[in-house]
Amino acid sequence: MVKLSDEMKTEFEKMKIFPLATASKDGVPNVIPIGMCFLQEDLETIWIVDNYFLKTKENIMANPKAAIYVWGPEINGCFQVKGDIEVVDSGEEYEAMRTMVKAKSDRFPAKLLMKMTITDVFECKSGEDAGKKLL
Amino acid sequence: MVKLSDEMKTEFEKMKIFPLATASKDGVPNVIPIGMCFLQEDLETIWIVDNYFLKTKENIMANPKAAIYVWGPEINGCFQVKGDIEVVDSGEEYEAMRTMVKAKSDRFPAKLLMKMTITDVFECKSGEDAGKKLL
Repeated sequence: MVKLSDEMKTEFEKMKIFPLATASKDGVPNVIPIGMCFLQEDLETIWIVDNYFLKTKENIMANPKAAIYVWGPEINGCFQVKGDIEVVDSGEEYEAMRTMVKAKSDRFPAKLLMKMTITDVFECKSGEDAGKKLL
Repeated sequence: MVKLSDEMKTEFEKMKIFPLATASKDGVPNVIPIGMCFLQEDLETIWIVDNYFLKTKENIMANPKAAIYVWGPEINGCFQVKGDIEVVDSGEEYEAMRTMVKAKSDRFPAKLLMKMTITDVFECKSGEDAGKKLL
């Protein structure tokens, strides 16, 4: 497991929409914009909420890996986070996710909690260092 | 092969930065922001320029598939484009890419032309239709 730095946490929390990439078992990549992506206090876990996932869900069920990046006009730097996903559909964490999402709006179905354990962080800023492993 | 609609073309051309997803042969997803991503006049081919690709290049060499999405504050709707990639490192199209990129700035290495043939387009807007195939 890998912990984001405090500086990365600051940038992460400025993000409104994250690109979430997954891949099918036979390697077809998929990427969608998601809003419900929350870094947890341990700095090594990210909660991703499945409201309307289709291919993303199928991919994660078959191949529980994901990648996001943290970048935007208001973000300092750019980094990619990769991780392993555990799909949570019951229990205390699941209920906590449901409560949090339903407090935002009851219209969200909040179907599943996709709990991502960070495994790697990579430099993502354009230039010679792009792609290098940071953590 | 699949052709984007004229409406999709209009939105595509408003985009400044695209999230580009690839996957390793064993299915590890990767996603990075790219600026050099150009829809061609045939509306079924996208030119992606490799300036600083690392994992993206390794992934494409091993598994020539990619996905991007078209979305942002200034974009109407949201759609994901998937395609097959042909890596071009010489010839007329390669030289045309080099000329175009070098005209922007000589600092860009413009290493390879990643020529994407669109295979699928999916709805990507949050809601019950998210993920459905459009084209």
